[in-house]
Amino acid sequence: MAPSAPPTTSSATAYDELIVLVKQASLLESTSYLLGWDQETMMPPRGVEHRSRQQAQLASIHHRLATDPRVGDLLAACESDQQFMADPAAVAAVNVREVRRRYDRYTKLPTELVEELAQVSTLAHHQWAEARKASDFDRFRPWLEKIVELNRRKAECFGWGKDGEPWDALAEDYEPGCTAADVEAVFRPLRTRLQDLITAVTTSSTRPPNAFNEIPLPIDRQEAFVRDVSRCIGFDYSRGRLDRSTHPFCSGTHCHDVRLTTRFQEAFVNDALGSTMHEAGHGIYEQGLLEEHIGTPMGSAVSLGIHESQSRMWENQVGRSRGFWRWCFPKLGEYFGDSVTSVGFDDVYGAVNIIKPDFIRVEADELTYNMHIMVRFEIERAMISGDLAVPDMPAVWNLKYKDYLGLDVPDDRRGCLQDIHWSSGSIGYFPTYTLGNLYAAQFFETALDAMPDLYEQFERGEFANLKQWLNEKIHAHGERYGASELCRHVTGKPLTADPLLRHLEQKLKPLYDL
Amino acid sequence: MAPSAPPTTSSATAYDELIVLVKQASLLESTSYLLGWDQETMMPPRGVEHRSRQQAQLASIHHRLATDPRVGDLLAACESDQQFMADPAAVAAVNVREVRRRYDRYTKLPTELVEELAQVSTLAHHQWAEARKASDFDRFRPWLEKIVELNRRKAECFGWGKDGEPWDALAEDYEPGCTAADVEAVFRPLRTRLQDLITAVTTSSTRPPNAFNEIPLPIDRQEAFVRDVSRCIGFDYSRGRLDRSTHPFCSGTHCHDVRLTTRFQEAFVNDALGSTMHEAGHGIYEQGLLEEHIGTPMGSAVSLGIHESQSRMWENQVGRSRGFWRWCFPKLGEYFGDSVTSVGFDDVYGAVNIIKPDFIRVEADELTYNMHIMVRFEIERAMISGDLAVPDMPAVWNLKYKDYLGLDVPDDRRGCLQDIHWSSGSIGYFPTYTLGNLYAAQFFETALDAMPDLYEQFERGEFANLKQWLNEKIHAHGERYGASELCRHVTGKPLTADPLLRHLEQKLKPLYDL
Repeated sequence: MAPSAPPTTSSATAYDELIVLVKQASLLESTSYLLGWDQETMMPPRGVEHRSRQQAQLASIHHRLATDPRVGDLLAACESDQQFMADPAAVAAVNVREVRRRYDRYTKLPTELVEELAQVSTLAHHQWAEARKASDFDRFRPWLEKIVELNRRKAECFGWGKDGEPWDALAEDYEPGCTAADVEAVFRPLRTRLQDLITAVTTSSTRPPNAFNEIPLPIDRQEAFVRDVSRCIGFDYSRGRLDRSTHPFCSGTHCHDVRLTTRFQEAFVNDALGSTMHEAGHGIYEQGLLEEHIGTPMGSAVSLGIHESQSRMWENQVGRSRGFWRWCFPKLGEYFGDSVTSVGFDDVYGAVNIIKPDFIRVEADELTYNMHIMVRFEIERAMISGDLAVPDMPAVWNLKYKDYLGLDVPDDRRGCLQDIHWSSGSIGYFPTYTLGNLYAAQFFETALDAMPDLYEQFERGEFANLKQWLNEKIHAHGERYGASELCRHVTGKPLTADPLLRHLEQKLKPLYDL
Repeated sequence: MAPSAPPTTSSATAYDELIVLVKQASLLESTSYLLGWDQETMMPPRGVEHRSRQQAQLASIHHRLATDPRVGDLLAACESDQQFMADPAAVAAVNVREVRRRYDRYTKLPTELVEELAQVSTLAHHQWAEARKASDFDRFRPWLEKIVELNRRKAECFGWGKDGEPWDALAEDYEPGCTAADVEAVFRPLRTRLQDLITAVTTSSTRPPNAFNEIPLPIDRQEAFVRDVSRCIGFDYSRGRLDRSTHPFCSGTHCHDVRLTTRFQEAFVNDALGSTMHEAGHGIYEQGLLEEHIGTPMGSAVSLGIHESQSRMWENQVGRSRGFWRWCFPKLGEYFGDSVTSVGFDDVYGAVNIIKPDFIRVEADELTYNMHIMVRFEIERAMISGDLAVPDMPAVWNLKYKDYLGLDVPDDRRGCLQDIHWSSGSIGYFPTYTLGNLYAAQFFETALDAMPDLYEQFERGEFANLKQWLNEKIHAHGERYGASELCRHVTGKPLTADPLLRHLEQKLKPLYDL
């Protein structure tokens, strides 16, 4: 193969300077991630006001760096060199394309709005935590109103497509290129098929016994256990850590500093295990980004949907599989003794796969989880379009839970106050969870095609091949491909709901005798 | 009293704008403190390189904010209004004076040097931690050479007095207005009198039994115990936290977010207790600064010497007193049971006051501690003047330990690698510890004059009066007075060594039968 001609000096020089500027903005952003992590895990309660000022300042400086007109000039210089941009999957072309996309967005937002969003979100988040503790929506209501209003202004700054709506403009931050109409087109048929399966499962006379989920186990042993398992599946603790927070999350500043959190319930070890494997899945993605590209789009995750595909795969496709539990069951014995293993392997495997409509999203099973997402998507879409007023939101929430899951929500703590997202200013985020479930299933089917003995590997505690496959097929590419394109690239097909439904049916039919 | 005329509009307006700019710079600095705290307590090992880049970026942005020519213009506008500056102890005049002092310093430093110092210190600090673990000075040597060289360049940028020397220029960051000659003038006579006392104590045939310091006690109980004691003496955990680190320190971002660290040795609970009370003393100072002034000199600590007076007072004047232990002894029983209290009150009180020349500064007793400081002061002064080459430093260190404390240093880990300071780029810092001991003794004598039943209060577990006295006399003033002026203001006298020597003699004579 003949080497292609070297790029002209001017675009190459412009590109080098562009990368310096982009890395500077990203470096500052990584500092604000650390402050966010600290706020959730370490900060003393009364530190919150000062923290909101720190975050607003960083957001403001970041916005100035990211909208520096010099970035625009350098982008234009690179883009004008057709040879330089010839291969759209080459490192430089990817970085220029994605920096352009961000730059065009950032420059549409006035600095004041960026600062206000940062400050209000930090404060609102704190108020949410207190309101949730007290199960008192009225305490959070004015903050949510403010957040909806600021997000509507943000959407107006960005604008949306001819047949689109304000929600689309916000979702672009989380799942680039994905509109409310796109989401609805996937969710509507999925909902029907999931509801059929939920009805079949909940009306079946067979169901796995729940005993394993009711054995109280000491929190410090649970912590050692989930730390061990997350290390075994491939999370690298020399480049990361695990702490506790109200709402589990994965954050960090760099591929060498990735931070997971989890939470513990004494009588439900699989809550901590599932949360930890989930966040470790996110963490393995972050640790799998290439160090040389960190701070540029080529060293960044594709989208939240793709990020979620990684966490879901480790949590569900791996962590609720029979193969995984063949390996994990004896480990339960090591950490917790006979009280647990006396339940028996089949009942432990059954218990981690129990389907039970319930109130809390982050504790939901694989099947009903997606219904929780649909409720939130429909509500946030209506709040942002103005069709739903914030004070009416709890009533609508409760109605939808009755409709989709047959549940009477007992209070706001277990209802519309349970999630962190809106309080942190994130609207347009929720659907990425279900997109993640769909991508996870489709990616995992492809991995199984490539490595048919994957479940046997899990039985032997071997997770390195799956991790490496993900490293190569997904992590190392950064933002080279968009989400739909990556899906076609990895699986050979566009995203469909079939793999997820197949996965759920294959697992649940024998357990529930369907 | 007739109200003074209101300040002219122009200086008042200039002052308001100045305070906004000063608070912005301080806000950014508080973010870099958080990053520093995180590095010591939480950061995964491989995060260090990225952290050094984050710190360099913040240092660079901070330097730009702090040297903004607009600050110079606004200062000049305020200073030119004599009426505005008439009362040198008024809030505005204090802020203008101290911002001017900082501004004149900052503007002498080129941004490149600031960035290089920030980046090199972060990396050097990490190398020091590794070198210390391995007791391998050679690993740290090139980094220390770099730090000495950068500090010498820094001193040259600042300049020093006609009869002064480079060390003076560096010390200004820690103890404004204090020169090497000033320090020597206090240290030289103090050394003689302390050495006499050390000789008397170490040659006495009477000495308290050490048994209390040799009882292994579980670390998690020790942690609960020191947390309890630090809360009782007045550290507010709703505005602070306590963690572990190699080298105990106090940091934070705001009076409502103050972070202490300590460390634990299984068989030496008083190490953790002393360290925690020491850092809590720093923390009580930080929490005692007035919220309305945070981010300005009026809401900042006077100097490191004054800061250290607060930590030392709680550690030594309070924490090694008979009154304190009357209260604390039963608490030992609550936390650790009979194994400890069977030692008996007198032997516990004696054990926490044992004088024993040893290698480690942070574990040193009240008396020999100051000799550790003298060694370091003499060495750093000589390294910065160029009289001592870095490779020769360990040999000189060991010679001085032989000379001043009669000790043969067994290795660099317990010798010249034991302290964090030089590795973090801090030269000119050490003498503030002994100045702190002197200020602590003089302040505490004054407090005892005002509240003669202070020790009886401690016996009853009452520490609020001392804390409030410190809040009012010292903390609330921020930088209203310089260190020597504050000392005269609080105690009516200039700083002398007499109170410290009286305190030590009164305590040690009965214990050692002198």
